[in-house]
Amino acid sequence: MDNWYWDLSVVNRAGQDRTVRRESGMKMKRHSSVSEDIEFIFTPLVVLELAKDTNDKAIEWFTQRIKEKKHLGGAHLKIKPMDDQAGNSQVYLLGASWRRLLVGAEALGLVKEYQDGSMRAFTYQNKEDYKYFSGDSYDFLTMAERQYIIKRELENLRAIDETMVPGHPQAKLYPGKSIIRRLQTSGLLLQLYPLHNKIELEKLSSIWYKRFHVALQPLNDIDKYFGQNIALYFAFLEYFTIALFPMALIGVPYYIFAWEDYDKYIIFATFNLLWSTIVLEVWKRWCAKLSYNWGTLLMKRKFEEPRPGFHGQLGLNPATGRKEPTYPNYKRQLRIYLISVPFVCLSIYISIFVMMIYFLMEDLARVYNNEVQSHFSSILIFCPSIFYAVVIEVMNRIYKYAAEWLTSWENHRLESSYQNHLVLKVLVFNFINCFASLFYIAFVLQDMKLLRQNLAALLITSQILNQFMESVLPYWLQKHRIRRIKKKLHITSIEKLPLADQIQMQGEMGQYLGTFDDYLELFQQFGFVSLFSCVYPLAAILAVLNNITEVYSDALKMCSVFQRPFSEPVADIGVWLIAFETMGIISVMTNCALIGISPQIKDLFHTNGIELVLLIVAIEHALLALKFILALAISDIPSDIRTKVAKMEFESLEAFKRKQIKEADESMEMEEQLEKTWEGKKKI
Amino acid sequence: MDNWYWDLSVVNRAGQDRTVRRESGMKMKRHSSVSEDIEFIFTPLVVLELAKDTNDKAIEWFTQRIKEKKHLGGAHLKIKPMDDQAGNSQVYLLGASWRRLLVGAEALGLVKEYQDGSMRAFTYQNKEDYKYFSGDSYDFLTMAERQYIIKRELENLRAIDETMVPGHPQAKLYPGKSIIRRLQTSGLLLQLYPLHNKIELEKLSSIWYKRFHVALQPLNDIDKYFGQNIALYFAFLEYFTIALFPMALIGVPYYIFAWEDYDKYIIFATFNLLWSTIVLEVWKRWCAKLSYNWGTLLMKRKFEEPRPGFHGQLGLNPATGRKEPTYPNYKRQLRIYLISVPFVCLSIYISIFVMMIYFLMEDLARVYNNEVQSHFSSILIFCPSIFYAVVIEVMNRIYKYAAEWLTSWENHRLESSYQNHLVLKVLVFNFINCFASLFYIAFVLQDMKLLRQNLAALLITSQILNQFMESVLPYWLQKHRIRRIKKKLHITSIEKLPLADQIQMQGEMGQYLGTFDDYLELFQQFGFVSLFSCVYPLAAILAVLNNITEVYSDALKMCSVFQRPFSEPVADIGVWLIAFETMGIISVMTNCALIGISPQIKDLFHTNGIELVLLIVAIEHALLALKFILALAISDIPSDIRTKVAKMEFESLEAFKRKQIKEADESMEMEEQLEKTWEGKKKI
Repeated sequence: MDNWYWDLSVVNRAGQDRTVRRESGMKMKRHSSVSEDIEFIFTPLVVLELAKDTNDKAIEWFTQRIKEKKHLGGAHLKIKPMDDQAGNSQVYLLGASWRRLLVGAEALGLVKEYQDGSMRAFTYQNKEDYKYFSGDSYDFLTMAERQYIIKRELENLRAIDETMVPGHPQAKLYPGKSIIRRLQTSGLLLQLYPLHNKIELEKLSSIWYKRFHVALQPLNDIDKYFGQNIALYFAFLEYFTIALFPMALIGVPYYIFAWEDYDKYIIFATFNLLWSTIVLEVWKRWCAKLSYNWGTLLMKRKFEEPRPGFHGQLGLNPATGRKEPTYPNYKRQLRIYLISVPFVCLSIYISIFVMMIYFLMEDLARVYNNEVQSHFSSILIFCPSIFYAVVIEVMNRIYKYAAEWLTSWENHRLESSYQNHLVLKVLVFNFINCFASLFYIAFVLQDMKLLRQNLAALLITSQILNQFMESVLPYWLQKHRIRRIKKKLHITSIEKLPLADQIQMQGEMGQYLGTFDDYLELFQQFGFVSLFSCVYPLAAILAVLNNITEVYSDALKMCSVFQRPFSEPVADIGVWLIAFETMGIISVMTNCALIGISPQIKDLFHTNGIELVLLIVAIEHALLALKFILALAISDIPSDIRTKVAKMEFESLEAFKRKQIKEADESMEMEEQLEKTWEGKKKI
Repeated sequence: MDNWYWDLSVVNRAGQDRTVRRESGMKMKRHSSVSEDIEFIFTPLVVLELAKDTNDKAIEWFTQRIKEKKHLGGAHLKIKPMDDQAGNSQVYLLGASWRRLLVGAEALGLVKEYQDGSMRAFTYQNKEDYKYFSGDSYDFLTMAERQYIIKRELENLRAIDETMVPGHPQAKLYPGKSIIRRLQTSGLLLQLYPLHNKIELEKLSSIWYKRFHVALQPLNDIDKYFGQNIALYFAFLEYFTIALFPMALIGVPYYIFAWEDYDKYIIFATFNLLWSTIVLEVWKRWCAKLSYNWGTLLMKRKFEEPRPGFHGQLGLNPATGRKEPTYPNYKRQLRIYLISVPFVCLSIYISIFVMMIYFLMEDLARVYNNEVQSHFSSILIFCPSIFYAVVIEVMNRIYKYAAEWLTSWENHRLESSYQNHLVLKVLVFNFINCFASLFYIAFVLQDMKLLRQNLAALLITSQILNQFMESVLPYWLQKHRIRRIKKKLHITSIEKLPLADQIQMQGEMGQYLGTFDDYLELFQQFGFVSLFSCVYPLAAILAVLNNITEVYSDALKMCSVFQRPFSEPVADIGVWLIAFETMGIISVMTNCALIGISPQIKDLFHTNGIELVLLIVAIEHALLALKFILALAISDIPSDIRTKVAKMEFESLEAFKRKQIKEADESMEMEEQLEKTWEGKKKI
């Protein structure tokens, strides 16, 4: 049994309390330092899985490079092989000393809380001045941060003068190439994922979702365990749900009393539109507050490396001077405009074609119902809607795979550019696919009853399907797998599994593919709630109910269905905010138009249709203008955080100035003295 | 005669060539260092005028503080009194050694061209690595930069433990209060302005405006002499004029062939709208290019001090920890919403009332013309338009004074906030005051002929009035004054005036109050050109002609009518870009509406008015969407500048990282070594 392995099991048993754990670690260290070196407190943080057929030379070289000191071009991490391996791969565990992690935290520009309560970029030399820092404590950095540091250090491990991975001539290297990325693309690196921590996970899930209680989510704990991107998603989900509450409450009387007066609907729609604007603006403030406290608001943007899949002829990056693949921009543009754009158009055409089939079926079902008038036929009349909703979801999923493939084929250099193109492709299609039939019913058929029925069918079906596909199905598969493992190993609880088996189990779990699908789901929901809000006020209630269960099922998914994901320090929800804002603008138009075509309003203006249209257009422009003014008037960052940031900036500026004045004064005087001496000599 | 004074007159005589000037300075210095100290090459840069009744103690204290070294809390500048003074004030000349100026350049974060052609923040210690730097040369910093440095150093001269200006108990001071600002607010400091340089000015004006020639303006020279804010205004004026060329060219055939077909006007309007969007987007790129080369794009935003007029109870600034006046925000909001907003509304009401009077007069004139049909009456018919145009300009000017007073009374803490409120107030009123009558004619009266006539009258009258008020009148007054001075001193040319008289003359010149009015004029012009472009294509030609003379008259104004202004490092035209973009959006709406109400289009759709309105609205939305997409698609900063900036950022990041790795590695190893020793001791 390896010493580090023993350490981990002790730690796991030592249990609940972090302080206990740290103290036990300390005691152990001091006690055992008599016979062993400092390395024994190795705590595995990240799992690295290499292909079985990896050459021994490659492994030796790779582990050597990982262990090497930073100034010798290594990553200065610790790596240990797992001994008892059954599968067809080689598993390694990665860790680092706490000092190495602190240095890494500085290199990545992590921001931590300072003694005076402000957030500052961490520096190793002033480590003692940060709050919560105490001696050789691991807890100063959250586990998510430690794992993120290891991941980034691995990615920054670059080839020096190697031309290939030893023993694998097909895996070419050149100076400056990230080794881990080459191993990934050449298929030698199978998996790289952070380890779960049983105790922490248990603690988190018990306060998060394991018992039903009315409380806000433990966002700070989620941030500590999963990192900022996941925590921000759950914060947004929670915030959005709470923001829907007023809409839902106001919607109730409309449903109960079956209010159909259009003056009431106008009030509802106007309230809805202004509310949605304010909600998004206030979210920016809330998000700034969260990301300030989590340290990402002040984190400097890192220099973006080419994404792993990017390929092309080797050239020089004009900014970094490093060798890297280059790909001419015009070729990418050609691919986008000649292939991707036509593909998106074709997909939209197909989606609209399917919609027309649905309307045909809808007609058939209605005719059949009118003829037969049976119990069966009255159920049958709902079938086309539900069937169409299922088809929409299926098409969305198929399209997304195609979009991912296409965007990857477009060969974008940066991950951010890839993401933007992917999000744009998916959003445009999803918008049309989900809402085209509603637009058709609303503005071509002008059948408000059918619109309401269809909206309800689409909303409910898509919510049920999503919950099932995203959480219930994976959870069931996971349960099944655990049962199989239990049977195989003849045990009753997986809690007491030895570490090696636990790691093997985590390795077999699915990979969490990011928050894209989760945000997309919320985006669709926002569309259902806001686009036609004035004909179906109940939508908000359904959305609230869905989101409450969504919190639980997403939490379950994160904690026990998927592999733990690496944290990503982000300061906001990025492109999704723009997507939500765009939806808000479109919903102003649709709601105004809906009110304009409503029979009640039309009756009011029956003598002069043009006046009505002009009035509606004027109202729409006024609402849009109001939206923009509101967005401008509400500051994106709360004033207390702005003051804190300004204070820090001012202090560092002042410190810099003082240093500058001193240096410049000194060198100025020295130079002037020299000159005078020179003049004096000349005089003589 | 003072030695410094003699030096300047030598320099002035030495004449045209900078090199000559520097060499003569060098020779003189070396030659005369035998008998005199290093200070004799004092070149006056800035003039400071104190009130005649300033206490001698105050003057002594103030000059002492100005001369004091930086680390002793002074400004470390040079100050000399002017001897032969006639007026009722005391005039001082300020300068600084070239070393002091270089240190100041570093402190302000000025950005200069590096050896490798990139732009970098200047540092005194690496001064030799910057392009164009040579020995003790003054020319490395432009004169505008040198004067800006002196101004900023003066503003940053702060009270240490003084409680008042000596001898002036009413001028209270507290630690950290800017001395110069207190002198300003207590009326002791009458003027502070940079000196003109006869030779440079002569050179600049000869290539800029003194001879008529077809060429672009010498923007880099303007930047060097007047600084970035003035240079950017002239760059924008030039760019905007050139951008209007295509519009003007296309407008010509419409005027010549009297095209009235609305299909042609639709083409013209659509082209106009897209053109205006692209023009503003391309301006951002051009502006980024200019401000990169002038060093302001990369300049860090400085910490904003409270504006001079800001007053309130003494409190602590939470960000800087310095004492400064504080004023509760709610009081400011009350002033804004209870006084300023009603005032703006009242002004708008009056403006509209005046407009109604104009329409009454217009009617009367027409009726009279129809009755009398004389030569006189046909001239009379143009009078109301012209008279109204004059009244509009007068109201604009009166309103602006009121707005300035009100905004100042609102007591904004920051200059930027003051400017934003002022610009908003002025723009809203100006927009309604200038264009309300046009909107009324276009959409209420729907009289296209009257609209065209009115548009022409307003545009031409406002342009003539502006040129007269802004340039011709001040120039004439200045000429008059110079003639008076010549008579008084019995000389024929002011070129040969002694320095003291030159300075006195500059002191009597008016103060240039910033680019506000100039941008406002362009903004109005943009409105006239774009809002109703489809009924009066000739507007663009008139605007082009006006702008060509505007360049000349503005240049004249800058060079010989007003005091030289301090330069201000700005990277863009700020809030004006937003104003122009908003105007662009509004003009999409007006042009679409104009096309919609045109008789020809109405005839096409005479059976179905609603369809026409819906079509127009759809086109408007599509055009607005296209505008946004274009604005997103065109990158604001050209890619070559982005690469340069990225390269610099990457290099400084890498340098920082290398330093960090080295330091951290060292201290880590040291700490580990220590720990091992400690463990070893324990073992023993």
